[in-house]
Order: sequence, then structure tokens, then C-alpha cells
Amino acid sequence: MERIRTTQLGEHVGQRIVLRGWLHNVRALGKINFILVRDGYGVAQAVAQDEEVLTTLRGARDESVIEVTGVVVAEAQAPGGFELHDISLRVISPVTETLPFPLHKPHVKTSLDVFLDHATVGWRHPRQRALLRLSAAMMAAFRDFLNREGFTEIQSPKLVASATESGANVFAVDYFGKRAFLAQSPQFYKQIMVGVFERVYEVGPVFRAEPHDTTRHLNEYISLDVEMGFIENHFTVMALLTRLLRYILQWLAEHNAAELELLGVQMPRAPETFPRIHFRDAQQLVFETHGEDCRGEPDLTPQHERWLGQWARETFDSDFVFVVGYPMAKRPFYTHPDPDDPRYSYSFDLLFRGVELVTGGQRLHRYDDYLAALTRARYPLEPFAYYLEAMKYGMPPHGGFAIGLERLVMQLCGLANVRQATLFPRDLHRLAP
Amino acid sequence: MERIRTTQLGEHVGQRIVLRGWLHNVRALGKINFILVRDGYGVAQAVAQDEEVLTTLRGARDESVIEVTGVVVAEAQAPGGFELHDISLRVISPVTETLPFPLHKPHVKTSLDVFLDHATVGWRHPRQRALLRLSAAMMAAFRDFLNREGFTEIQSPKLVASATESGANVFAVDYFGKRAFLAQSPQFYKQIMVGVFERVYEVGPVFRAEPHDTTRHLNEYISLDVEMGFIENHFTVMALLTRLLRYILQWLAEHNAAELELLGVQMPRAPETFPRIHFRDAQQLVFETHGEDCRGEPDLTPQHERWLGQWARETFDSDFVFVVGYPMAKRPFYTHPDPDDPRYSYSFDLLFRGVELVTGGQRLHRYDDYLAALTRARYPLEPFAYYLEAMKYGMPPHGGFAIGLERLVMQLCGLANVRQATLFPRDLHRLAP
Repeated sequence: MERIRTTQLGEHVGQRIVLRGWLHNVRALGKINFILVRDGYGVAQAVAQDEEVLTTLRGARDESVIEVTGVVVAEAQAPGGFELHDISLRVISPVTETLPFPLHKPHVKTSLDVFLDHATVGWRHPRQRALLRLSAAMMAAFRDFLNREGFTEIQSPKLVASATESGANVFAVDYFGKRAFLAQSPQFYKQIMVGVFERVYEVGPVFRAEPHDTTRHLNEYISLDVEMGFIENHFTVMALLTRLLRYILQWLAEHNAAELELLGVQMPRAPETFPRIHFRDAQQLVFETHGEDCRGEPDLTPQHERWLGQWARETFDSDFVFVVGYPMAKRPFYTHPDPDDPRYSYSFDLLFRGVELVTGGQRLHRYDDYLAALTRARYPLEPFAYYLEAMKYGMPPHGGFAIGLERLVMQLCGLANVRQATLFPRDLHRLAP
Repeated sequence: MERIRTTQLGEHVGQRIVLRGWLHNVRALGKINFILVRDGYGVAQAVAQDEEVLTTLRGARDESVIEVTGVVVAEAQAPGGFELHDISLRVISPVTETLPFPLHKPHVKTSLDVFLDHATVGWRHPRQRALLRLSAAMMAAFRDFLNREGFTEIQSPKLVASATESGANVFAVDYFGKRAFLAQSPQFYKQIMVGVFERVYEVGPVFRAEPHDTTRHLNEYISLDVEMGFIENHFTVMALLTRLLRYILQWLAEHNAAELELLGVQMPRAPETFPRIHFRDAQQLVFETHGEDCRGEPDLTPQHERWLGQWARETFDSDFVFVVGYPMAKRPFYTHPDPDDPRYSYSFDLLFRGVELVTGGQRLHRYDDYLAALTRARYPLEPFAYYLEAMKYGMPPHGGFAIGLERLVMQLCGLANVRQATLFPRDLHRLAP
């Protein structure tokens, strides 16, 4: 007999079939025992009355791997609308210990720390794994959209020779007696590859040695990186990003309705054009609306970002808002200045529900501009030699952005901590599991 | 006027259009100059006769970023069958220096070392970038096949607390004053996630601190990792791998005909079932056929693998051959032994044209078996605590494999060195670009 998935019961009504999966839980209702079987796709119910089955059940704790054979019957009360009758049961891998926390309750009822300590089993909880499914779907939608738009996927090295991009906040690696570093982003490589393919993207880990201890930061996370050539300016990039995010949301609505419902996700308001506000005007707005005078400051605080998110929601019915034109002083050397006012840049942040989700902008593209920018920033040229070579041999106006995958899941699902959206997070205190 | 791609000329015959791209080369034929424009997708030809255009051209070296406006004319002699007439030319980013090696010749004519030193521009060569396009297509096909088969994509951390998998050959990282390591594979994580999703895959970098200096090894490469639960044994895994590879080859034939042709790729012979031979029999075959007595050795040498590849090609008309049942002594502790002869394992290598491309097998799945295996291998249990927790709480029989992406490109395209298939390779001598 072929094994079927728990989600396929409806296609086999009246037939005797095999399910394999984990013993999610046993519910006793009077003399009837309901066995919940969870496989990689869903949960199904089997009715256990036979004495032999009940004896086998008594030796198996939750999460035992089992095989249940039975006849599929339509039953409105059962999860999914079907259940198995007349069953036989076989234990494939018995579990003899009690779980650190139950996996069959609607929610995981434990602290985040305990969950993360036991995440190797904690992710089996249907609600938890739904988060990872959404994360996988976002990556799939991201790639699908960009492939259609003529982008090519790249995989750039994570071991790099010098801590060039910012000079700080990088992890050092012992590389055969030499010193190497973990790439804090594929920024230089994706720009270089614009010279090859015009349009490139990368999905991969980035490493930040920042001693942050917040609900929004991780020391290793997945960055969805995009870079494109032959742009007009940063607005070209923002237009693509807007279409991309709308595509991802549409994809989730089409492919992941079950996960969205299970998690009670309220789908974001994402108008065809996201509202945008210049950095200066954003500070003015914060001042006028909330009385906090941050005008002249080089950056926005998380509180300012929350206020701006609220403003976009109330004024434009949008959960997304672009802040454009950040001061050059706070942006990396390769950022393209605003030609009309070089104190400001052709860069942007995209806030999603009041939290920074994406950073991007137009980059410099002329070799001489790079030499000038590096000199102004007092960087030595030598560590940038390879990067500069790509600029020397013809680069078009280009720009791009990076989306933090875990933050997208966090903000979409209204999670309190980005660690809840991260498979085995890495932070100041945590290097395992 | 909207810019179109060089590959779209045929859709605009008779129209005045704009191309943007790189000045691939100028060919002078008598009084006529042919401008070759390369964009991210192809190369197109424009005819330059106008004096103003010729003057502009004289100031621009190869790789200058240019904009060419002209009328599309069908011309059998031109690359792609169309060319631009009556053109105007604008230089967007001028190049003033000569390239380290020309990019418009049919082949890059330089040593691998010089190519790699200048790979930031070297990848612009149409032949070279075709390799990276094939690589991107392989990843896309890999994911597409597995998504259809009910697999879920994961992204596991690359920073890990202990060098558990083999105990050696890992890079150490300074992690906020503690010692961390770079994951040499997602092995433990993908197994753990079988407990969540049954079927998972990951595409990502792996790090090997092996001081190899061969044409087949890299210290950082892209691993295509698969792990699946509820298998019968390693043959279940091999059957999926066979279908996967045939799917990837089919995908390339459908989507990447241009790259395959440009590179002169001879498509591999990949029968519906790949031939397989037991490790013992492979050694016997080597002895009988080539007189080299390796019987009793714990592993095969690269020369043995080449002979086996030749044998599979000649005997079964297959470029792929499985070697199964490697000795347990040479396989990691989590490998499932052959129940009929526990000196041998339920593991395999897949050779592609005589080179190891994939390693895989069935893993242990019972907690007690893990405790016994670790004790036998004299490993301490503590560093494995998280991994063991997943095994304690119910794991099905499972197995998987890992494909080296760059090796797949190398062997498909008949390259002499895996570095030719790697975007910015990392080895003993090279950490840049």
C-alpha cells in the first residue's frame, strides 16, 4: 500500500491507505481515542478502538514516528474533514521521554529562550513551522519575480580578504594562518556583477559583528540582495522594489493561505505606489506631529520610524513608506549624492509597519567618483583594488537594495522578536543549536 | 524612446530604438566601422559611418558604457541576424585604459591565474558569463524539481558553536571573544529539519579548511543539499537524485540552449536508471581491468574513479555511475550501516564523467544508535546535544545528499579546473577578489 500525505485523505475516501508521521497527540473522548498524526504537510485524525492499537499507543509518547493504516471516512468534526477508521498502528521510532513543551497545543507556551534552546523540536509545532514555510515562499517569490525581470542569480564568496565595506563590525576568520573576514554583505560583488549581467540578485547569509542586543538585530541573517544597471536614479530602484514586494505578498496569498490563516496574519496594505517622504521632511513631520525636534540629526531613531509608519498608515492607507535622501554622512562611500544638494543622498530606507525592512539606493558608477569618495573618506585605496577595477572598465548608472528576510517575516506576522522568524538565530548569547 | 535589449532587435525591425550596454569592440572593414554593443543578454551590431559617431568612438575604449540609437535592419551577416543603421552614439561611462585581456575574442586567452586576478572584468566575456548562467539555471532547476516533490527550502546558520561533524578541517571565527566555526555543511541542520518538514533542501556556501591544492577542491563552495524522511534505504535517495539530475539536464536543454551551444557542451548520457556498482565490486573491477590491486583499501583514488567512469560509459552508455556501500570506516558516524554486513554502509558516491559529484546515503535515525555510534567513534556527547535532541524526539528513516554546484558546471562543460566554474574562488592562495 502506498503511503499518502495527511493532506491527501480527501482523494481516497473509502480506501484503505497508509499514513506515516509523528504522533502529534492522543485525545481520549470517553472510550474512544483519537490519534493525531502529523506529517510534513498537515495533521490527520485516526480513531483507535481496537485493543491491540491501544496497547501499542500506551508505549509511545508524543513525537514517536508511527505508521497508521486505515480506511478514509468523511467526518466533519475531524481536522481537514476526514479521518481514518479500522486502523492498525506500527511504531517506527519510539519516543520515551516527555517533550520540553507540548507541540499539539494551539500555541507554544514557553519563553522565547526555552523555545530557542529546544528549537530543534520546537520548529515542529504547526504554528512555528508555518513561519518557516512563509520564509521559504518569500524566497521563492523573490526569485521568481526577478527571474521574470531578467535578473541572474549569483552566489558570491562569504570569505573576504579585507573588511572594506565599513571597516568595522566584521568577524575575523583564521584562514590558513592569514586573517580573513566574513562578508557583511554581497554589496561589492553584486555591483561588480552588474558589469556582467546588468541585473543580479543573491539570497544568502550575511554576517554582522555588531554587539547589538535588540529584538530586531541578528549577527547572521539572510539577505535578499538586488542590484541593477542602467537606472535613471534611485526612484527606478524603488519602483522595482515596490513591484517586487507586491508580487511577494500576492504570491503568499495564492500559495500560502493555510499558513497565513493559521498565523492569523493580517495582510499588509501595499498600494501600487508606496508613499515616500524626504528625510528632511520626515524630521519636520516628527517635529510637528510629536513635538520631538530631531531636525539636523543624521539619522532616524526606531521611535521616529514607528511614527512615520503610523503616519503612512493613517494618511495613505499604506503599511509601507519610503524615506528618501538620507544624509551622505550616514551612508557608505559608494552612495550616490543628490546632485541638487550633495549633503543628501540618492538612497532610501523602506519602512514596513514602522520598522526598517530595506535599505537601498543609487551607487556611484564612475571610476573617478570612487577615487574621490574613498579619498574623502580617508580610506586606503589598495584593499579596494578589485572593486575599483570593475569601475575602471565601464559601469552603468546602477543601484539596488537588500531586504532582511527574517524582518519581513517578523513584520508580516506581527512577531515581537526577529528571533521568532529565524531558524537557529545567532546573537551575542547564542551560537547553538 | 524605450531602451530594448540586444536580444530583442528582431521584434523592432524598421523601428528606431535605443540600446545601452558596453562597447564590446569596434571592427573596421574598409571604411565601415561595426560597433559591437554587449548588454546583459547578448551582443548586437551597429554600423557607424557618420563622422560624429566616428569621432565619439575614437575617445572610447572597449568596455565603455554606451548608448546607441538607430534603426533596426535585418542583416544575415550580423550577430543575431539584425543590426542598427543610421545611428547616434553617446558615451555614458568612458573607459580610458586597455583591458588586462581582450573580452571580444572567442576565448579568453590568458592563464587561469591572470583571469582570476581580473575576474571582476573577466566574467564579462560571453563565454565566461555563460558558465555562470548555467550555474544559475542549475540552482533554479534544482529548486523547481524539489518544490514540486514537496520539499521545503531552509537556510541554516553558517556560524556554529563546535566543529562537530568531523572534528577537523573547519575555519575558526572570533565570535565576540568566543570561538566559533564556519559550518562545513548543513548536515546536522538538514537532518534536524526532516523532523519538521520531512523533506528539505538548502542552497548555500560551505566552508572546508582543507589545505588541498587540486583542480577539484575549493575552500568555499556552493552545496546543493537535500534530505528526506520516510525512505526505504539509500536506494530511495539515489532514485530521487537520478530524477533530479535528469530534470536539471532537461531544464538546461530547454532554457539554456544558447549557453550550451556557445560553450560547445556535449550533453551527458543520463539513462533513466544510472548504473551502480558496490564498492567491493568496484575495487575488483579496477583490479581485473587495470591490474591495480586496491582491494581492501578503504577508499577509491581519483584514478579509480576515472576508470569507473570510463567503464560506465562503455558498458552502460552512461556518464553517471553510482558507487554504493563505502566502508563504514571512511564514512561519518551518522552513516547507516548495511545490516547484512556492517563493515559497509548504506552510502554512495555518484561519479559524473569519472569525478565524484555527489555524496549521500541513509543516516542513522534512532537515538540509541546515535549514542552507540558516537561512543564507538570516541566523540564526547556534549557538543552533539542539540542534534541528539532531535533524534531523541522521533526521527523517521531518512537520508540525503549534497551536490557540489561548481563541480557540476565543471564536469558538464569539460573544464580543467573547478575554479573556472566559480565566481571568485577561495583557495590556499586566493582570498580575492
